[in-house]
Amino acid sequence: MGESGVVETLGWAAQDKSGHLAPFKFTRRATGPHDVKMKVTYCGICHSDLHQIRNDWRGSVFPMVPGHEVVGVVKEVGSEVDDFKVGQLIGVGCMVHSCHSCESCDNGLEQFCPKVVWTYNSVDTDGTPTYGGYSGELVCNRKFVLRMPENLPPDAAAPLLCAGITVYSPMKHFGMTEKGKSFGLVGLGGLGHMAVKFAKAFGLKVTIFSTSPAKEKEARGILGADEFILSTDKEKMKAAEKTIDYIIDTVSAVHTLDDYLALLKTNGKIILVGVPESPLQLSPTSVIFGRRFVGGSLIGGVAETQEMLDFCGKNNITCMIEKIPMSYVNTAMERLQKNDVKYRFVIDIENTLTSE
Amino acid sequence: MGESGVVETLGWAAQDKSGHLAPFKFTRRATGPHDVKMKVTYCGICHSDLHQIRNDWRGSVFPMVPGHEVVGVVKEVGSEVDDFKVGQLIGVGCMVHSCHSCESCDNGLEQFCPKVVWTYNSVDTDGTPTYGGYSGELVCNRKFVLRMPENLPPDAAAPLLCAGITVYSPMKHFGMTEKGKSFGLVGLGGLGHMAVKFAKAFGLKVTIFSTSPAKEKEARGILGADEFILSTDKEKMKAAEKTIDYIIDTVSAVHTLDDYLALLKTNGKIILVGVPESPLQLSPTSVIFGRRFVGGSLIGGVAETQEMLDFCGKNNITCMIEKIPMSYVNTAMERLQKNDVKYRFVIDIENTLTSE
Repeated sequence: MGESGVVETLGWAAQDKSGHLAPFKFTRRATGPHDVKMKVTYCGICHSDLHQIRNDWRGSVFPMVPGHEVVGVVKEVGSEVDDFKVGQLIGVGCMVHSCHSCESCDNGLEQFCPKVVWTYNSVDTDGTPTYGGYSGELVCNRKFVLRMPENLPPDAAAPLLCAGITVYSPMKHFGMTEKGKSFGLVGLGGLGHMAVKFAKAFGLKVTIFSTSPAKEKEARGILGADEFILSTDKEKMKAAEKTIDYIIDTVSAVHTLDDYLALLKTNGKIILVGVPESPLQLSPTSVIFGRRFVGGSLIGGVAETQEMLDFCGKNNITCMIEKIPMSYVNTAMERLQKNDVKYRFVIDIENTLTSE
Repeated sequence: MGESGVVETLGWAAQDKSGHLAPFKFTRRATGPHDVKMKVTYCGICHSDLHQIRNDWRGSVFPMVPGHEVVGVVKEVGSEVDDFKVGQLIGVGCMVHSCHSCESCDNGLEQFCPKVVWTYNSVDTDGTPTYGGYSGELVCNRKFVLRMPENLPPDAAAPLLCAGITVYSPMKHFGMTEKGKSFGLVGLGGLGHMAVKFAKAFGLKVTIFSTSPAKEKEARGILGADEFILSTDKEKMKAAEKTIDYIIDTVSAVHTLDDYLALLKTNGKIILVGVPESPLQLSPTSVIFGRRFVGGSLIGGVAETQEMLDFCGKNNITCMIEKIPMSYVNTAMERLQKNDVKYRFVIDIENTLTSE
């Protein structure tokens, strides 16, 4: 395919830390020899989109077009790209560039590359700001373009690109996949419900720890959790001590690590993927007695993200989503703030992106 | 050998939480069929002895005869014991009994057995209190008796039984042994100097992080550390960020975990073996960015302790000690309180145990 020039693209952007999103016209670079241009069809709303448009983590640059769970179809490929074809279903996750020469890149951990370029609110190699998937088109180096499984509905697959890989990667890396072991999930939201799906696919016994009694029915029914324990129920928490092998903790509010470490058997592990605003307290005895550990994990590398997508295709794993029109995005952000979503908003870009 | 009856034994005990140690007569059980009776020759002073005699951790029972780094010679063996012989150099560490039927015992982790009996300040299977190695004789089930390497001086080898295994075990379990990797040690004391010796034996590049400038010369000279960084030197700490693969943290004062997590490369790990009085603060981002983890470890199982002793024999590893007479023990405790020891006190029980 030939390479076309710079094109004007429509997106929705926040202009300041009010976080209000509105139509915004900008340009995408010309499709370079190693690039793929995608027509965006769906984009998931990640909780970090909300933090970023409101500058909760500092460092936000405006105007900002969020979105890093981007699914679409190939519209054009660069002259050196021979493994993607026009019309193919593809995805772009949190990253669009890395150096490919550091230790992290060598180990397939592009997310830790010092020169990583994030999909939005980052500075691209040409010095221009990156704009995310709340937009009609996206141009990306082929190394960061992923094949979406053809058997999965693309809207429900979009959040795999961040929510999915964020929990899949630590489960694989930290060895949370041994069939028959007991798995605990703390915080049943966008990330958490994916962790439950992966845990079931790995053959683990799943216990969900939640503060919301209202989530029990769905957790046991639709998600197939084996147990559901209210973390506010001290007796049940006490009874569950030393019964869990692995925990994924998705909670982004300040909470007590020691309470969850107490649930772990000897050699148990808890991996944090949520980012509370303040440090958590950790009693050294909670890890010393039982030889436990507390780890952390950040999304996953490109190859592992593809592995996860293929795994999802094979095991028919998608996200539970609420599909919304672009015009609903500001309301969706308000609801997300209150955790009022089961479990991920996905914007129908293809059919509802308008300039009004 | 035959089995003799109950015998009166001399030890030094604390009578109350003043922690003052003084001569104390008590009885040891008759040597049962599976027991080994040892004549104690040396006993190390562990920092936990100080905590226990002062009831710092609550739960102290008096009178208390401390001591769990106990070296001596076999004086008598039970009728069923065929692998120890009279006169043989042996050791007893922190444990004298466990159930041998739980998951922890099955995995060689007797220290996590719910029925573990500690060498002192614990209740033995017959309901009597256990008394430790600040005493002339000790009777112990053969399963908890260790062979001391004959080529090592027994006084300098005594602290291997707690200080040694406490750092050796996590280094082995958590994979801190890959030649050429960089190892950080936080807190250069009894445990710390052993970690440095093991790290050097494993072929690691060793950096010591300490608050005491006075320790630098010895750290580099006698211990052979490759680097010595004052943890109060913000510039040098900054420059060391992301340079370390593994850290053993022996500090038992409250300190900032995030400062040390920042030193770790991607996939780095820090293992806590010291027990501060209050919880430590952990910023989730410190583990999330870099996929790091914070673990803990408690001594080691019996088989691993024997493995460690054999490793020390082979590599000629002992502790740096200050040998003291029994009468000096209260002064030694005062000095230990101020960390004024390089690096472990060992009591010359054989030659100095008196009833005055």
